[in-house]
Amino acid sequence: MKISHIEHLGIAVNSIEEALPYFENVLGLKCYNIETVEDQKVKTAFLKCGETKLELLEPTCPESTIAKYLEKRGEGVHHVAFCVEDGVAEALKEVEEKGIRLIDKEPRLGAESLHIGFLHPKSTIGILTELCEH
Amino acid sequence: MKISHIEHLGIAVNSIEEALPYFENVLGLKCYNIETVEDQKVKTAFLKCGETKLELLEPTCPESTIAKYLEKRGEGVHHVAFCVEDGVAEALKEVEEKGIRLIDKEPRLGAESLHIGFLHPKSTIGILTELCEH
Repeated sequence: MKISHIEHLGIAVNSIEEALPYFENVLGLKCYNIETVEDQKVKTAFLKCGETKLELLEPTCPESTIAKYLEKRGEGVHHVAFCVEDGVAEALKEVEEKGIRLIDKEPRLGAESLHIGFLHPKSTIGILTELCEH
Repeated sequence: MKISHIEHLGIAVNSIEEALPYFENVLGLKCYNIETVEDQKVKTAFLKCGETKLELLEPTCPESTIAKYLEKRGEGVHHVAFCVEDGVAEALKEVEEKGIRLIDKEPRLGAESLHIGFLHPKSTIGILTELCEH
């Protein structure tokens, strides 16, 4: 597996509306897109920071995994997404063969139409890890 | 303040020796430096991932803030460090004027001889945030 860069950081927030002024007015980053990913029950806002995006994640209902995360851990970095050059399907297969526990056995479609797959944080030093490709 | 990119992600680990095989053998990243920062009571290991580094942080004693973090939250992303183009001293002044609570009022020397300053996570959407310059 060849990782080219960190594609994005997923950041759990209670409210995108309340969080954006920090990222835009204090850090000086610009939000260029807001979209809702229905099947993940999140509203997402994207900002660019060098080659990496910040993806703010706001739950759209109490059953959202992000809502549960916020309840347990509060706001902060929720996951790290690495861009893989040789395809997510191959990468998932490869890391599973190396003993990593997968959340997604097959790639699925995420925000911004990326092909994505999640690895389980029990296998990845506590970091919920996403692999994705453009 | 102008942020160019994410300089590094600080990742709290119980043991660099036990964590490195995941980052090197599974993710395929390479560790290029290990150093101890005495005044922060941490041993650090650096890997490069695109323009961003992963900085693994292992406590060198139970009084280390990283040891306390691990006790409370377990392994995972500990802080996010942004590279500022116009100097850390100016950036700290600017964000304080915008109402951000600082951990470091003045820049200090961090790992890899970077000038760094930390912002308090209560002001930064739960993300312990470091500003740094080369």
